[in-house]
Amino acid sequence: MRFYFDFVSPFGYFASLRIDDIAARHGRDVEWRPMLLGVSVLKVMGLKPLLETPLKGDYLRRQIARHKRRHGLQLARSADDPMMDPRACAKAYYWTLAHAPQLAKPLAQVLYDRYWREGEDLADPDRIVAGRLPAGLDPSALRAGIDGDEARTRLRAEVEESMRRGVFGSPTVEVDGELFWGVDALAELEDWLARGGW
Amino acid sequence: MRFYFDFVSPFGYFASLRIDDIAARHGRDVEWRPMLLGVSVLKVMGLKPLLETPLKGDYLRRQIARHKRRHGLQLARSADDPMMDPRACAKAYYWTLAHAPQLAKPLAQVLYDRYWREGEDLADPDRIVAGRLPAGLDPSALRAGIDGDEARTRLRAEVEESMRRGVFGSPTVEVDGELFWGVDALAELEDWLARGGW
Repeated sequence: MRFYFDFVSPFGYFASLRIDDIAARHGRDVEWRPMLLGVSVLKVMGLKPLLETPLKGDYLRRQIARHKRRHGLQLARSADDPMMDPRACAKAYYWTLAHAPQLAKPLAQVLYDRYWREGEDLADPDRIVAGRLPAGLDPSALRAGIDGDEARTRLRAEVEESMRRGVFGSPTVEVDGELFWGVDALAELEDWLARGGW
Repeated sequence: MRFYFDFVSPFGYFASLRIDDIAARHGRDVEWRPMLLGVSVLKVMGLKPLLETPLKGDYLRRQIARHKRRHGLQLARSADDPMMDPRACAKAYYWTLAHAPQLAKPLAQVLYDRYWREGEDLADPDRIVAGRLPAGLDPSALRAGIDGDEARTRLRAEVEESMRRGVFGSPTVEVDGELFWGVDALAELEDWLARGGW
């Protein structure tokens, strides 16, 4: 199964903390696929940023607060804080996926924690490599990789492919040809995995 | 607790089939409150109809099909069929709530079934009263009530009040000052009721 997320999406972060456990309970593996919700997808959909949508924005703020209380999460960042440009993080992920694939998911987890839990802004590739990284990942090779054509081309292709598959929100999980959108849909996803679909 | 829904919302219909059972399991009562998502709320939000939103529309169609399979539902109507104007149904509900309150929820359940499961278009008040109604509800009194000032004024006030409380989608459940939006959120709602909040 595939887990699509945007590094600047709080609900993507919440799902990232649970998705591999959910999959493992049902004998599944998860491929992580960062995408660019605000940078690309919402423009295709003709929508403004979710937190700026009347009524819905307020709901999302309360839902985030409720989710944090329910799961005992402490975040240094609020959804209303200025949002970083997530492209450097996404390019770091795809470069690592190509050159040290076993470190790609740990890198995404570290970057997600550094952004949401620790409050670091990771728009700048120099900041990404200056801080905590998974053991074994070479910071200078990663730094060069983030700026390379390979990562840029791969990221663009992945975002296009995600939209081709119908992904329009973060988080989205794809399994058995079905999409499950939103942290709210993880319960239905578990039901799907437990029953083997329906 | 309060259950907000639009008669033309398929997800509102799906939730209507479960919400009273969920509440009863936790010793709660549910007040039903029809609102006008397409007619009023989406305009305030600056959004186009959900099924016409690129990517999201396709997702919603697949989610509806998945929900029908999962719960063994047969509907005569598709979400892509022309949508009725839900105002006559909503006015019928609020008139009944004022004049025969114990029949209001049964009326809403009957109208929801007639629209989605049986495929009737109920935009015309004459159609509403010509077909199946809860026992004890006087069709001619209801017919006059739908066109009266009382129902129109009450419906307008209820829609405004729902937005004031932050409701922007169908279904939405309000309990203990919290909102739970979407049929996907019913699992979290159950968790909330079981724990008495968090």
